[in-house]
Amino acid sequence: MIAVDAMGGDHAPRTAVEGALLAARRRGLRLLLVGRRSILEEEIEEFGPGPAVRDRVEVVHAGEVVGMCESALAVRRKRDSSVRVCARLVKEGRAQAMVTAGNTGAALVAGKMVIGVAPGVDRPALAVAMPRRVGRTILLDAGANVDSKPDQLRQFAVMGHYLAQQLLRMNSPRIGLLSIGEEAGKGTDLVREVFKSLDATGLNFVGNVEGRDVFSGAADVVVCDGFVGNAILKSAEALAEFVGAQLREEMSSTLRSRLGYLLAKPAFDRFRSRVDYSEYGGAPLLGLRGGCFVAHGRSSAHAMSSAIQRAVEFCEAGIHLKVSAKLSEVAFEAAPKAVAG
Amino acid sequence: MIAVDAMGGDHAPRTAVEGALLAARRRGLRLLLVGRRSILEEEIEEFGPGPAVRDRVEVVHAGEVVGMCESALAVRRKRDSSVRVCARLVKEGRAQAMVTAGNTGAALVAGKMVIGVAPGVDRPALAVAMPRRVGRTILLDAGANVDSKPDQLRQFAVMGHYLAQQLLRMNSPRIGLLSIGEEAGKGTDLVREVFKSLDATGLNFVGNVEGRDVFSGAADVVVCDGFVGNAILKSAEALAEFVGAQLREEMSSTLRSRLGYLLAKPAFDRFRSRVDYSEYGGAPLLGLRGGCFVAHGRSSAHAMSSAIQRAVEFCEAGIHLKVSAKLSEVAFEAAPKAVAG
Repeated sequence: MIAVDAMGGDHAPRTAVEGALLAARRRGLRLLLVGRRSILEEEIEEFGPGPAVRDRVEVVHAGEVVGMCESALAVRRKRDSSVRVCARLVKEGRAQAMVTAGNTGAALVAGKMVIGVAPGVDRPALAVAMPRRVGRTILLDAGANVDSKPDQLRQFAVMGHYLAQQLLRMNSPRIGLLSIGEEAGKGTDLVREVFKSLDATGLNFVGNVEGRDVFSGAADVVVCDGFVGNAILKSAEALAEFVGAQLREEMSSTLRSRLGYLLAKPAFDRFRSRVDYSEYGGAPLLGLRGGCFVAHGRSSAHAMSSAIQRAVEFCEAGIHLKVSAKLSEVAFEAAPKAVAG
Repeated sequence: MIAVDAMGGDHAPRTAVEGALLAARRRGLRLLLVGRRSILEEEIEEFGPGPAVRDRVEVVHAGEVVGMCESALAVRRKRDSSVRVCARLVKEGRAQAMVTAGNTGAALVAGKMVIGVAPGVDRPALAVAMPRRVGRTILLDAGANVDSKPDQLRQFAVMGHYLAQQLLRMNSPRIGLLSIGEEAGKGTDLVREVFKSLDATGLNFVGNVEGRDVFSGAADVVVCDGFVGNAILKSAEALAEFVGAQLREEMSSTLRSRLGYLLAKPAFDRFRSRVDYSEYGGAPLLGLRGGCFVAHGRSSAHAMSSAIQRAVEFCEAGIHLKVSAKLSEVAFEAAPKAVAG
């Protein structure tokens, strides 16, 4: 069972409802749609799902909303906000995971405060799977924390290691530490300190990597503070969009190029689905006692549906819980080699 | 007169020599080509430039090289390295600017140590003009410094302001401070402190911006520490490359798409020239007493030629010197409003 925050996101509740109904076409999937009951019932009515799909979606009322531009701390005050009710459903075991396209900060606060942080974890981290030529690279923290301490970055590396094992099915994923030069001495004081501690963890630590390696394939996991991770993620999204728009503009500029575009359209569509972030759904917030997936604020119905499906896959494989459990289990300071298994 | 480090870059000296000869086709342009004399004479011979072009290029001997992976501090030891000789030529006034595709760190050290930092500047900053739909956005610092202090970030903002005035011909460029959320309280301790001081400078400070705004056009100058700026720049370069490669792959996958590609090729070429970094040449290192331009290590001959031309334009307009002079001139702490003019 997945709890969907129907009130979060730039196009809520419409796209959240539509995305949930799309996802619910999958047999066996059950969803809790969280938000103002009357609005949600009305929206569902409008899309007119068949009875089988309709039966898989249960509306759970939440009277308040944390707005996209509101402080994340509003979660504390708004006990009946949709994001907080979602977190409560996870906490109480009624849902295995929640999915929200709302205020990311609010999701983090709700996740930490209501679902709770797993033992051995200081701070949960947002993990994003970035595209590359073959496979994916996990970037974390992609924006859950700023001013991370060395120990926290080390925990991100360990969480990234287990996530890559589970998600990318790799025995020994290569862990890179984001820096401004590849040599061991390069970077900030923080990076130098983390470098030493990662070197001693027994992870497959490949040393410092650079921004380009988020897409190059030189590492399977790129570890950084959330301030930098967020800057990389947001700028990459904007660049991909800009490039797409430029391409469309140029392709429609002459009759000849328009004809070329028509011929090549299937290739373009494949290309787009390779680089479009919305195809891959939400990013898991790792290190919690339950599932919490953050989708893009501008998520379309299709993107919401992808995020829900991704959350289902995580839950079926128990990926995020395994990551949390491993981290709690392993006292990697005491037995550095133990984490590599 | 521009001093070109012929020994710097992944494909040196070949691409540097070829790039210099390409640039020297422009009437009135004179270049100093710095590196091992015998090698450079031989390379020039091989390209066989006409006598007019050949006359515009003077070889200046430098017996040593700072390698791409060497520590930047090797500049101190290698007094006769090509990058250091270039800096000396600028210092002595024989050249107005230097261009290097070599070790960026070495260029920074040579710039600071030999050319010298302008009064009122703590640290020079690397300024990169990023593409956007219309015009460009200046990102600085793109990697010259890490662990910047609030005062240094404020200086970057002021340098960015004057650079945008000169380069983008804007009266009142919008200055954004890179953060992880747009609201004033969002971000790291550093960001919050800089936010307050920028608010008081009289610059057209539009507040916090996010990674996406490097490409969105929401600000004309995006200010950040070099660690983050470098991560954004390098990941953006890699993503643009990845996207281009994916597109080529998809476009050549079927006969139909190949035909489409052929028809649309002129549009593709225009598209590529819009988003290809090598078209825009080197990034200026702002805040020095002379010109210093850092080109990409993988620069092609075409990219080197673009970088040299860009350096010439900067010198003709005196852009980098105006930026340095303005910063020295303005005691913006004392008279906050003065910097907006």
